[in-house]
Amino acid sequence: MSVDFKVKQAHKAFLASYSNDNLQKRAGWLEAIGEALEHWREDLVTVAQTDTHLPEARLNNELTRTVFQLMLLAEEVRRGDYLDVTVDHQDPDWGMGPRPDIRRMNVALGVVGVFGASNFPFAFSIAGGDSASALAAGCSVVHKIHEGHEALGLLTAEIVAKALSTAGAPQGIFATLTGRDAGIELVEHPLVKAVGFTGSVTGGRALFDRAVSRPEPIPFFGELGSINPAIVTEAAWNARPDDIIDGFLQSLTMGIGQFCTKPGVLFLPASVADAAKSKLIEKLRLHEPEGKMLNERIYQGFLESRGYVASLSGVETITAGDDSNPPMPAMFAAATQGLGKNAAVLQTEMFGPAGVVLSYNDQQELLNAIDELPGQLTGTIQSEADENIDDLMRTLGLRCGRLLRNQWPTGVTVSYAQSHGGPYPATTATNSTSVGTAAISRFVRPVAFQNFDETELPSELKESNPLELRRRVDGEWNRH
Amino acid sequence: MSVDFKVKQAHKAFLASYSNDNLQKRAGWLEAIGEALEHWREDLVTVAQTDTHLPEARLNNELTRTVFQLMLLAEEVRRGDYLDVTVDHQDPDWGMGPRPDIRRMNVALGVVGVFGASNFPFAFSIAGGDSASALAAGCSVVHKIHEGHEALGLLTAEIVAKALSTAGAPQGIFATLTGRDAGIELVEHPLVKAVGFTGSVTGGRALFDRAVSRPEPIPFFGELGSINPAIVTEAAWNARPDDIIDGFLQSLTMGIGQFCTKPGVLFLPASVADAAKSKLIEKLRLHEPEGKMLNERIYQGFLESRGYVASLSGVETITAGDDSNPPMPAMFAAATQGLGKNAAVLQTEMFGPAGVVLSYNDQQELLNAIDELPGQLTGTIQSEADENIDDLMRTLGLRCGRLLRNQWPTGVTVSYAQSHGGPYPATTATNSTSVGTAAISRFVRPVAFQNFDETELPSELKESNPLELRRRVDGEWNRH
Repeated sequence: MSVDFKVKQAHKAFLASYSNDNLQKRAGWLEAIGEALEHWREDLVTVAQTDTHLPEARLNNELTRTVFQLMLLAEEVRRGDYLDVTVDHQDPDWGMGPRPDIRRMNVALGVVGVFGASNFPFAFSIAGGDSASALAAGCSVVHKIHEGHEALGLLTAEIVAKALSTAGAPQGIFATLTGRDAGIELVEHPLVKAVGFTGSVTGGRALFDRAVSRPEPIPFFGELGSINPAIVTEAAWNARPDDIIDGFLQSLTMGIGQFCTKPGVLFLPASVADAAKSKLIEKLRLHEPEGKMLNERIYQGFLESRGYVASLSGVETITAGDDSNPPMPAMFAAATQGLGKNAAVLQTEMFGPAGVVLSYNDQQELLNAIDELPGQLTGTIQSEADENIDDLMRTLGLRCGRLLRNQWPTGVTVSYAQSHGGPYPATTATNSTSVGTAAISRFVRPVAFQNFDETELPSELKESNPLELRRRVDGEWNRH
Repeated sequence: MSVDFKVKQAHKAFLASYSNDNLQKRAGWLEAIGEALEHWREDLVTVAQTDTHLPEARLNNELTRTVFQLMLLAEEVRRGDYLDVTVDHQDPDWGMGPRPDIRRMNVALGVVGVFGASNFPFAFSIAGGDSASALAAGCSVVHKIHEGHEALGLLTAEIVAKALSTAGAPQGIFATLTGRDAGIELVEHPLVKAVGFTGSVTGGRALFDRAVSRPEPIPFFGELGSINPAIVTEAAWNARPDDIIDGFLQSLTMGIGQFCTKPGVLFLPASVADAAKSKLIEKLRLHEPEGKMLNERIYQGFLESRGYVASLSGVETITAGDDSNPPMPAMFAAATQGLGKNAAVLQTEMFGPAGVVLSYNDQQELLNAIDELPGQLTGTIQSEADENIDDLMRTLGLRCGRLLRNQWPTGVTVSYAQSHGGPYPATTATNSTSVGTAAISRFVRPVAFQNFDETELPSELKESNPLELRRRVDGEWNRH
C-alpha cells in the first residue's frame, strides 16, 4: 500500500473517531495495545534482541516501561484533564464590554507521522511515547519504522493493529511504513498535521526543515541531540569522589552510551582534575564491555565523533577507547578556560561510550562555559547540602529541560511531572515534552465555541458536564 | 541604538527578572502599563486618529480593551496557574520502577520579538496582546513598530517604558524598533527566543520562514489570514432573512472590513440566493462609508484582491463597490457546486469591505466546500434551535479556531476561554491562541527539577508551596 493510501486511511479513521465523548473508548484502545504487547512479550523481546543487540533484561525493562506508558496515558485520557476545558458564561458586565458565552477545549490535530528511535525499540518506537500520546490525543498515527529494527517493527505493528481492531478502533488508525523516501513523503503529505521524531540532529533537522517548508507548515516535535552536562562542586568531590565517578561512569556506559540523556560532559574543579583523571583511568580499566552497538551506522558514527573530539586542540585523551564493538569507553579532558562560543567540545555529541572532563578554575568560569552550551535535555548538579547552588541552577536551567541534583540523567521516569525536552537542539519544540502525561498536549489544538445551545455543545463543554471533567468556569477551577 | 544592543539589553533584563517568586512584581508591571495608558488616553487616541484614520469612539473602545487585557493578564500572573506546577513525589512502587522526586513548572523563554498589527494600533500593537502576554510570561519584549502608526508607536513606547521603569522593572525589558530591516534582524537575532506577529500571509510567512531557518529555530506565533466563513441554513434564512443580512453586513463593513475576523464568505442555500442578493443590493445601497482605510498600502492591496475575485470565472458581481477611499462595499456571488481544491474564491482574503455569497444545493455540497477551506480563525453557523448541526459543527470545527452560532465573528472578547487561532494560514502555530489568558502559554517552556532539596527548589516547587499555587500533586489537583 502506498504512503498516500495509508495516510488517507488514517485520516478517515481520525474522522471516524473524532467524536465528542470518545474518551473511554480511546483509553480502552491504549489499554488493549498494552495488554497485547504484554501477551507477546517473549516473542517481542526475542526479535528485539536480534535486531538491536540489546540485552534481554534491558529489553524486558523497556517493554515494561512501554506498557506502563500506555496504561498511564489511558488513565490520563479517561480523566480528560488534557482537554483543558474552560467555560466563560455570558457576562454583560465584563470589563471590556459584554462577554458572550464562550467555551474552549482541545481537539485532536489529525494524522500524526511518527519516526521511531533506534535506541529504544519499544519505548520510543512503534508503540512508544510519540505513538501512544498521539493516539491518546485522538489522532491517527502513521509510523515510520526505524531501519535498525525492521523485523521487530513489523511484528509490533501487527500486534498493535490486531489489538486496535479487536478493541473496535477504526481501521487504519495506526499504520506503518518503511524506507527513507516513504518517511519524507509522510512528512510532506497534506493530511499529516504533526510529526513526532526521536533521532540525530542531522536527520531530525532535515525532516524539520521539510515540515516547516510545506505550503501548510506543521508542528515538528523532534528530539535531536544533547550532551547532558554534569557539574561537580568542590565540596561534592571532597565528600564523595568515588560515588561521583562511579555514578558518572555507570550512567555514561549504560546501554553502551547510546542514550539521549547520557552524561557526556563532566565539569570538575581544576584543583581535583588530576585526581579525577586517575580515578577514571583506574575504573575504566576494569570496565567489561557487553553486547554490541545498536547497528553499524551508529558504531561508525560513534568512532567518527570520538576521533573528532580526540583531534581537537586543547583536548587531552585520558583513555582512548578502542575500535572493537562495543568499544571500550573513551575519556577526554579539557579546560573550560578560554572555551569560547561554538567550542566544538560543547557542541559535539558522541553517541556511544565516551565523555569529556572539563576542569574549571572558579564558579564564574564554570557559569560562562554553561552559557555557551546549546540546548540540553538535562543538566546535572552534584553538590553538598550546605552549598548555595542558586546561580548554577539558574544558569543551567536556562539551557535545559530537566535539572537533576545528586542523581544521574539516564533513566527517564514516565510520570505527570516529567519533562523530556529542552531548547534546540535538544528538541525542535522547546515548549513540549515527549515523555510523561504532558506529551499528549503536543497533538491537540484549542477550539472555542461561542453562543451554542446546551443541546448542540460537545459533551465536554455542556453546562451539565456529563463527562464530569475538571474545568475552569468563569476563571475558577472546579472538578465538576 | 542598534537592534543588537536592544536585544542584548532585553536579554539582560530578562535575566534580571528571571526570578523564582516574581509573580507579584510582574503583575504590578502589567498594571502599571495599563494605568499609564489610561492616564494618557486622550493623547494616545488623538495621535492614533491621525495615524490610522480610525474613528475616535472605536479607538477609545480599543484602548479600553487593551488596558483590560493588561489587567486580566496581571490577575492571571498573580494566580500563577499558567506555571502548570506539577509535583511527583518519590515513589518506590511506581509501575515502571522506582520514581524519583520530580517537579515541573513553566519558565519564560527569554527575549520575544513582537510585530504590531496595522489594524489594531492598541490591542494588537505596542502594548497589545503579544507584548502583554510575553511580559506576563516573564519574557522581555522588543517590539517592531508597524509603519502604519509610527507616531503612535513611539508615543506608546515612551509611556510603556516610563511606566515599567517607575514600577521598578529592569531597564531594557521593553524596547521598540522601526523599519523592515530591523524587523528581520530581530527575528534572526540569536538571543530572540520567540516571535509574535499579526499581519498578512505574505509578510508573516516570510518572517516565519526566517524564524524556522535559523541555526536555532524558534517558535513563531503568527496570525496571518482568514476569510471566516459564515453558514446559513435554510431554516435560519426562512426565519430571519433581514437579521442575517444586517448582521452579516454590519460585521463585514465594521472598521471598513479591516478585521482579521471579518466574515468574508456567506454560504446560503441556492434556493434563497436570489432573495439574498436582492436584499444585499438594497441594503448596501444605503451604506454610508465613514473614515478612510488604514493606509495607502492596505487600500491598494484591497483594490487588487477585490479586482482579482471579480475576475474569477464563475464569480458574479452583485455590487462592484468603487475606488473611493473608503470604498463602497463590494459583494460577489458564486456557486459552491464544482468548487474544487484550491478554489481561489475560498483562498483569497479581501482585507476591506468586500464579501462573497456562495450558494449551495444541499448539505453534502456545503460540507465538501468547507472541506476545501484553508485554516480559519472563525467559522459561523446561523441555524434554528431544532436543527441538527452536528455535521456542520464538526466539519467546520476541523478548519477553525473558533466556532460561533447565531452571532458574528468580529469583536473578539478577551477572556479565559477565548481562542484566537486556527490551522494555517489562520496561524502559524495552530496549538496556540493570541487572545485571552491562554496566550501567555506561548512564551513559556516546561522545566523539570529532579531530586532537589526543599531549600534549593524554586518557590513555585517547594513542598511548602509558599506562593499558594494551584498544582497537581501525584496526579491529583489541589489548590495549595
